Amino acid sequence: MSSIIRQDLSTKDWTIFSVKRAQRPNDFKRSRKQKIQKQHELSCPFCKGNESMTPEEILVINGGKDWSVRVVPNKFPAVEYKKDTREGGERRHISGPYLSIDGIGRHEVIIESPKHNDNIVKMDTGHVEKIIKAYRQRFLDISRDKMNQLVTVFKNHGKRAGTSIDHPHSQIVATPFVPGFIRNKMFEAQRYYDDFGNCVYCDIIKNELKDGSRIVYDNNKFLAVTPFASVVPYNIVIYPKKHQSCFAETNEDELLDLASVLRTVLKKLYDLLDDPDYNFVIDSSPADQSGNRHYHWHIEILPRLSTRAGFEIGSGMNINSIFPETCAENLRNQKVK
Amino acid sequence: MSSIIRQDLSTKDWTIFSVKRAQRPNDFKRSRKQKIQKQHELSCPFCKGNESMTPEEILVINGGKDWSVRVVPNKFPAVEYKKDTREGGERRHISGPYLSIDGIGRHEVIIESPKHNDNIVKMDTGHVEKIIKAYRQRFLDISRDKMNQLVTVFKNHGKRAGTSIDHPHSQIVATPFVPGFIRNKMFEAQRYYDDFGNCVYCDIIKNELKDGSRIVYDNNKFLAVTPFASVVPYNIVIYPKKHQSCFAETNEDELLDLASVLRTVLKKLYDLLDDPDYNFVIDSSPADQSGNRHYHWHIEILPRLSTRAGFEIGSGMNINSIFPETCAENLRNQKVK
Repeated sequence: MSSIIRQDLSTKDWTIFSVKRAQRPNDFKRSRKQKIQKQHELSCPFCKGNESMTPEEILVINGGKDWSVRVVPNKFPAVEYKKDTREGGERRHISGPYLSIDGIGRHEVIIESPKHNDNIVKMDTGHVEKIIKAYRQRFLDISRDKMNQLVTVFKNHGKRAGTSIDHPHSQIVATPFVPGFIRNKMFEAQRYYDDFGNCVYCDIIKNELKDGSRIVYDNNKFLAVTPFASVVPYNIVIYPKKHQSCFAETNEDELLDLASVLRTVLKKLYDLLDDPDYNFVIDSSPADQSGNRHYHWHIEILPRLSTRAGFEIGSGMNINSIFPETCAENLRNQKVK
Repeated sequence: MSSIIRQDLSTKDWTIFSVKRAQRPNDFKRSRKQKIQKQHELSCPFCKGNESMTPEEILVINGGKDWSVRVVPNKFPAVEYKKDTREGGERRHISGPYLSIDGIGRHEVIIESPKHNDNIVKMDTGHVEKIIKAYRQRFLDISRDKMNQLVTVFKNHGKRAGTSIDHPHSQIVATPFVPGFIRNKMFEAQRYYDDFGNCVYCDIIKNELKDGSRIVYDNNKFLAVTPFASVVPYNIVIYPKKHQSCFAETNEDELLDLASVLRTVLKKLYDLLDDPDYNFVIDSSPADQSGNRHYHWHIEILPRLSTRAGFEIGSGMNINSIFPETCAENLRNQKVK
């Protein structure tokens, strides 16, 4: 049987594995020419020296005499921060049978480095820890505002992943509600908890550590695997080994371990697949449900090596051309230089 | 307020409208050079004269002395047709805590024309009707096999939409279960029916016909609108005006009207946006739930003018840069030549 459909235990979503032959990493490499970039770009608002080109900074993390990581409001926000409505709440509108909400929330940019041509895979782990520290501080602060229900931290790397600015950066968006997509995932996790008395993600972690075939890398506190029902080639998920429902539950002293795993797996991807475009996103319980027993935050890494087409859009299922066990093996064998 | 978040009444999904300025159709036009294509390509398995390059045909619809539309099994199927398991049912496997299913189902290609350089927008309506007739016949036949739970008819047009073959074609995939993505949509529709005693899509159609601002085109039997919470720029949905839960419920004598609406809206898109890449998919109740009162089949057309990035992937919400009312107006004003 060359086609097999696997179910994600946590979400109950299905991926069709249609694997024609053993795909080598070369099959996924891009043929694009690498742009050689300078350390400083005169016109880049995120470069050191150009700080006046962004709105006023929200958070700065220093290193030596320079800033290392800078968080600023997005100049072209998807949702807007309105201080005067913090207590008043968002405004909902009815037009005919339809519902809409004022787009109030937060949209911030985490500038990951003063250098234009920097990249998480080129930084030392200490610098990556500072980026994650910025994620955490902003997540905590934004979550304190009861206007903000869902806080999404994400990174778009490369054109296929939807980025328009080369300077390394991530983003945070907060919205005034939890969308059904997230609610459904939490519902499935809670149902598993009801059935089995365990967090489904904790059970997955336990199984993956025992099985071993899908492990990419791990250390004391974090585990990176290619999920059993990987939605795309080289899909990687990073879990905290200990149960934590919300990203806000992380301790300061865990962040270096997280930085090490994130940097290592991104470096393996970079070296193996020649700097593929990717998205990553921190998938977490909303902060007001922090401490729950059924959800378990994690980082989802999705390389953009394939195109989502009509079947995927229409059915919500994915078609993947390579098994996660193959990807994990290739990534394990890729030594980090 | 320049950011507003709209809810889709039928799915309860949200789209963030972050509209900086009135976007003109030119902002979405591609700058790619058009490949000039020949009517016949020696190496194309879908061209007239090359019929032996495909597996044996399942259905042929003739016109004059030539075939007009041809349906063949996909040579590289995502799921496979196994005749001997039709009665035995699919096989489920447990590995550790995980579930998988043999990838048994159907994966067929509808070759829309004998001509390599043809396009729905260049055909006469009678030919488009034949394509839809093929969709319907295959949908009905595939649905009769109780192995097949969800039958998805879709088309990928252009590289950004995930197609690798230029010759005009659509596809059908049948899977042995209904995925959560579809189940959730049906659940929301059923909840609306419980609350209000109407099909939510019938209520949307009634509202759109009354309101008018999002109508692209309509005729006796079908209505094309840009939905209130359009997920992408120039998102178009075609609904049968009369309640029909399943695509299998269409009558032969309705197909010409459907062909006319489909061809007209695709032609408007083609002329207005210079042949944009797009996907379309027939979203329908599974056939074994045919006749239900809460779901309402429709064709979802999704031009690929923007990139789904980390936020959309992580939150399940979409960010759209143009209001559907603007798109509908531009499309209405685009005369079909």
